[in-house]
Amino acid sequence: MSKENFADKLIKAVKEKGNPICVGLDPRLEQIPKFIRDQVFVENPDASPTMLAAMTILEFNKGIIGAVADIVPVVKPQVAFYEIFGADGMWAYQETLKYAKRKGLITIADVKRNDIGSTAEAYARAFLGEVELFAGESEVVMPIFDADSLTINPYLGWDGIKPFISEAAEYGKGMFVLVKTSNASSGDIQDIVMENGSPLFELVGQFVDSWGADCIGESGYSFVGAVVGATYPEQAKKLRRLMPNSIFLVPGYGAQGGAAEDVKPCFNDDGLGAIVNNSRGIIFAYENMEQFNELEYAQAAREACILMKRDLEKVL
Amino acid sequence: MSKENFADKLIKAVKEKGNPICVGLDPRLEQIPKFIRDQVFVENPDASPTMLAAMTILEFNKGIIGAVADIVPVVKPQVAFYEIFGADGMWAYQETLKYAKRKGLITIADVKRNDIGSTAEAYARAFLGEVELFAGESEVVMPIFDADSLTINPYLGWDGIKPFISEAAEYGKGMFVLVKTSNASSGDIQDIVMENGSPLFELVGQFVDSWGADCIGESGYSFVGAVVGATYPEQAKKLRRLMPNSIFLVPGYGAQGGAAEDVKPCFNDDGLGAIVNNSRGIIFAYENMEQFNELEYAQAAREACILMKRDLEKVL
Repeated sequence: MSKENFADKLIKAVKEKGNPICVGLDPRLEQIPKFIRDQVFVENPDASPTMLAAMTILEFNKGIIGAVADIVPVVKPQVAFYEIFGADGMWAYQETLKYAKRKGLITIADVKRNDIGSTAEAYARAFLGEVELFAGESEVVMPIFDADSLTINPYLGWDGIKPFISEAAEYGKGMFVLVKTSNASSGDIQDIVMENGSPLFELVGQFVDSWGADCIGESGYSFVGAVVGATYPEQAKKLRRLMPNSIFLVPGYGAQGGAAEDVKPCFNDDGLGAIVNNSRGIIFAYENMEQFNELEYAQAAREACILMKRDLEKVL
Repeated sequence: MSKENFADKLIKAVKEKGNPICVGLDPRLEQIPKFIRDQVFVENPDASPTMLAAMTILEFNKGIIGAVADIVPVVKPQVAFYEIFGADGMWAYQETLKYAKRKGLITIADVKRNDIGSTAEAYARAFLGEVELFAGESEVVMPIFDADSLTINPYLGWDGIKPFISEAAEYGKGMFVLVKTSNASSGDIQDIVMENGSPLFELVGQFVDSWGADCIGESGYSFVGAVVGATYPEQAKKLRRLMPNSIFLVPGYGAQGGAAEDVKPCFNDDGLGAIVNNSRGIIFAYENMEQFNELEYAQAAREACILMKRDLEKVL
């Protein structure tokens, strides 16, 4: 491994910022303050509707990132809310990742990619590594998304995971594998009871532990992390024991119903080992905080992070 | 359902073309004939390396699509080979889908998307439905990818599938849910033996059958299809019985090792119910056919489709 282990970088950032908050950048167009949309239109009256949308979400994200960069360690843009504007939206996705990096934040590309080995390799190079391109006779090698990490879906097994691990090892990047997701029907498949009496998600947790065994940094954590929903604290407790070296990315806090008490089992006794995501509750906090108007959406997001930090401190 | 059922359209196209071939558009840049790359560079000397790559793969795809459109019913662009060039690659992805549609082909966006309900909804609108945008005070509603169908991963359960079904019903679109994938380690999770003695993929098959029960068209097939790899014929046989109304999208024929005999169990007794994908074996056929040089890559692809059709006819 030629670069610093991603897990070490992440743990260091969590300690420096003094909290394990991940801000989910899910910029739903209809919830973005209207003044941003109007401003973008005034400045770019000839842009296509998809490009206007892309510029609007990017502008919104920059406001959020600028307001929270000094107090949280991680941001996680959910690609669906960018891809919904096609290529223009993906431009905003790349620019968002770039801007967050420039502001010193660790990024998680929430893309839940999954495919057979040779295809997974293309994803791994796109999100974590570098890609070979050509300009006439010259060859150019460059990063494309350059995220620090991404989320992946384990349904295809080891050969769909391996390319991400190779790339992550080479470039000092990481990943979070879906184990027990936060949604209501995650149990349909994840809770299926196996022959040995355990639910499937426990086996997936054991896989993640094994896949990440050679990826452990000085912090004691592996760059192969796991997605474990805040909405299932009992299951998280079991998974914490099965994957002691994995960092948990914990969605489901806030809008989805998870409380501070619910995320506690995702942490190890050292108070580390998990980062807690909040998307809507932070980025659209201005909608629910009387003291802020829409012009102050970024300050509202900052305030929401501070409140979330205090809420988590009660249990950690 | 306001539009013609996707399954009916697909079955009709298979009958009209007289074969169930899906051409996988996986344009790996390094395998694309160099003359295309050179031509694109000469015509666009100032384009960025990623845009050059995007224009090259689009040009290549147009050649393939033009050469096969009258003899095959379906194409399936694998998004990883576009996303690897970032936003520019996604532009090529949109243009490829558009071009294939214009040439009368049915498209499958091979994106394997998966997420919680509210996020899955964004994906569903992007790929199958329409999206609301703004240009100043005007609201604009438009399709973004406008694929006829897409592939999805079932690991998150029903609430991650439902938005795709709603959108597909409204717009006459369809989907293929991963059940048993073609890769070597697909068994890691998919073959796990459950409490009742059956492997997990059978339960996923039963889910797909149930999810698609209200989506059956006049052809007797449902617009909720399944991905079942040609590399596992025994498993396909079982799945065929469990999901009589699902159309199987069958990867793994050709480069991945599946033969005509192996895809046979994916079909119903009516000789329908499956489409067989071949990517590298068709689009890069020029590399292995002595009678064609790289300038004739499109003719080689057409010839490969004709050979594949004959190969499948032996068993169907």
